[in-house]
Amino acid sequence: MKLIDLTHTLETGMLVFPGDKPPSFNKVLTHQKDGTQVTAMSLETHNGTHIDCPLHFIENGKSTDTASPETFFGTAIMIDCREFGAGEEITVSHIKKAEIGWAGVSWVLIYTGWYENWGTKKYFDQYPVLSLEAAKFICEKKILGIGLDVISIDAINSTDYPVHNLVLGKGVFVLENLTNLELIDQDVFQIAAFPLKIKNGDGSPVRAVAILD
Amino acid sequence: MKLIDLTHTLETGMLVFPGDKPPSFNKVLTHQKDGTQVTAMSLETHNGTHIDCPLHFIENGKSTDTASPETFFGTAIMIDCREFGAGEEITVSHIKKAEIGWAGVSWVLIYTGWYENWGTKKYFDQYPVLSLEAAKFICEKKILGIGLDVISIDAINSTDYPVHNLVLGKGVFVLENLTNLELIDQDVFQIAAFPLKIKNGDGSPVRAVAILD
Repeated sequence: MKLIDLTHTLETGMLVFPGDKPPSFNKVLTHQKDGTQVTAMSLETHNGTHIDCPLHFIENGKSTDTASPETFFGTAIMIDCREFGAGEEITVSHIKKAEIGWAGVSWVLIYTGWYENWGTKKYFDQYPVLSLEAAKFICEKKILGIGLDVISIDAINSTDYPVHNLVLGKGVFVLENLTNLELIDQDVFQIAAFPLKIKNGDGSPVRAVAILD
Repeated sequence: MKLIDLTHTLETGMLVFPGDKPPSFNKVLTHQKDGTQVTAMSLETHNGTHIDCPLHFIENGKSTDTASPETFFGTAIMIDCREFGAGEEITVSHIKKAEIGWAGVSWVLIYTGWYENWGTKKYFDQYPVLSLEAAKFICEKKILGIGLDVISIDAINSTDYPVHNLVLGKGVFVLENLTNLELIDQDVFQIAAFPLKIKNGDGSPVRAVAILD
């Protein structure tokens, strides 16, 4: 068994979705003064590598505390979408022609390679975006979640968030800001991406890992 | 496969370790005003069900970002210690006589049943405590972590934290404030308790789950 860490590091001042407040981490106890280290964290539910629960866009949708834990641990596949460039739509025909069996699949990861821009302003440029049709096709496969290596399942300049509303409206969860996808060298693997158990949580930073044989 | 959620819910004003600041969760965007919900969180690394990394007590010890992810996903056993009452020490002889095979075990959960007091002031009374000898014996079994259903691996009134220093000093991780242990009905199971990937993180709230066959 080998684990691949698909998670970006959370740190003070890291770049976040435009308009969100960057997180801060401050030591409230230190080895030097107190003989122990404890850290106070100020962060938002959608900072870093994180889960969007349906409640993020859907009133009364499932939240971090009402969703079944099984949602966040299951069989995953990855679709290589690196042929789509900045601002291009990932088409439903591309998703359909991916030679993948869908039986028993819980999570689908969309691999654009855009995460190589993490930590730079380019990360917030127009990245490849899942088309509404492609998202709809994936949701019809009865999966539990869609993971992406970009900051949003909608385009960066979206104002009405059609893909979020479609996907979360179908009760499908979203996992954003993945990294290290090039290290997944199996067609089918397990994924674990458990949100914190926040009461009425619309989402949560997570430690996302791929579990390989 | 069945997952048992071993995690207490994080919420505003929840009871925390004496001296720590209780967390707060505030909506910065709401469905009513903004058409989406986003939550700002203020919490500490040792709130709720959480991992202690060696760095919590050991300068230059492993942290949430430098520990291998494999540390937090592995084979676990649970030792029934419910015969020990408030303030009593769980003895090394009790741990030794538990009829458990140690081969291949990564995590050991100490089941006191004290989590039934969660949410009340009694939770912070003197709970059953692992003796230093018992902790040392467990660490010698080459395990990766020790989980407990109480707020600390040391006594509540400890000032020098001998068990933390011993266990974390040996590079063994600690998982505190577990719940629902009565639902684990297998001798051997898998545990997942991944910390957030916080830069230099001394610990992290986690979603801890037991994975049963």
